[in-house]
Amino acid sequence: MYLDSLDKLVSAFRSLPGVGFKTAQRYAYGVLNMSEEDVKTFAQSMVNAKEKIHFCNECGNFSEKEVCDQCLKCSAETICVVGEPKDVVAMEKLKNFNGVFHVLHGCINPLEHKTPNDIRIKELVARVQKHKTKEVIMATNPDVPGDTTAYYIAELLKPFGVKVTRLAQGVSMGTDLEYADEVTLNRAMELRNNL
Amino acid sequence: MYLDSLDKLVSAFRSLPGVGFKTAQRYAYGVLNMSEEDVKTFAQSMVNAKEKIHFCNECGNFSEKEVCDQCLKCSAETICVVGEPKDVVAMEKLKNFNGVFHVLHGCINPLEHKTPNDIRIKELVARVQKHKTKEVIMATNPDVPGDTTAYYIAELLKPFGVKVTRLAQGVSMGTDLEYADEVTLNRAMELRNNL
Repeated sequence: MYLDSLDKLVSAFRSLPGVGFKTAQRYAYGVLNMSEEDVKTFAQSMVNAKEKIHFCNECGNFSEKEVCDQCLKCSAETICVVGEPKDVVAMEKLKNFNGVFHVLHGCINPLEHKTPNDIRIKELVARVQKHKTKEVIMATNPDVPGDTTAYYIAELLKPFGVKVTRLAQGVSMGTDLEYADEVTLNRAMELRNNL
Repeated sequence: MYLDSLDKLVSAFRSLPGVGFKTAQRYAYGVLNMSEEDVKTFAQSMVNAKEKIHFCNECGNFSEKEVCDQCLKCSAETICVVGEPKDVVAMEKLKNFNGVFHVLHGCINPLEHKTPNDIRIKELVARVQKHKTKEVIMATNPDVPGDTTAYYIAELLKPFGVKVTRLAQGVSMGTDLEYADEVTLNRAMELRNNL
């Protein structure tokens, strides 16, 4: 059985992150099993999302408006800096944070030819100056590019007298120490707290 | 961040088989990262596939025409009966089978209220009569509904003097016997061959 339209649909699904041939095929069959109306709604929601969602001019997060609600509503006294829009979703679970976010769209990574000029660092500096920000919380990923970016930005912001902090690193809640990796354990030991 | 269009897209992805919230979210971000043109092509391929692909009137497999190429081309001297269209894809890997397929669209399963009338059994009987089929190979899944359906159809086809066979069951090639399940091992022992 070779069906051109099915083949194209499978190829389309393969362009999604982490989807191989078998999964794409499964999704394509899933689409064929839906009602015609549901398929149209699905397709429309895709085009709609792509058309409507852009990046907020202030924070760089996904937004349907030029400046997103959060940037309009909250003060930029505290800015939480993350790598990607999806990290904002993770950080939004925090109940007691009421500052704004700043999405860098990447981290400094020489291996991927990402220099400080390729990510939204100058926009961050501009925001800090404009809003007289008191604290910048670096919530980039706890890996080499994330750490590098955090240290780079901390150095850069020193002249502005803003406090730059970093998410604490150590063992995660609920971890079995037996399975914790060496780097994490070393970090946790280094940064141990008084009780 | 609450974006209506993103939310709708995530919901749409969740309607695909085996996709939960996190995966749907990941796919939605994947879509937002594509170019506008790619998203339109993706959406169009979905609508296209759903519009063009129907079931072949003869074999019940997916087809863009009323009767699929294989049913037009091959003789129905041998009919291989499978449960779902996706099983045809699996069986098509066989190099030395040149009969036609027949898709039942399900198997007899009292737990899911699937009776013989709910699946394409009478279409199979009609085909066997019309084409004077010599052999019907039951390739339904090797589980209780699949076996039940195979035995049911074998009984039903007896008056027509057609040979009804069933895919051999036993241990799969490359299996570690240590991990083979009891039922499979029992079946393999029962149906053991002379060397």
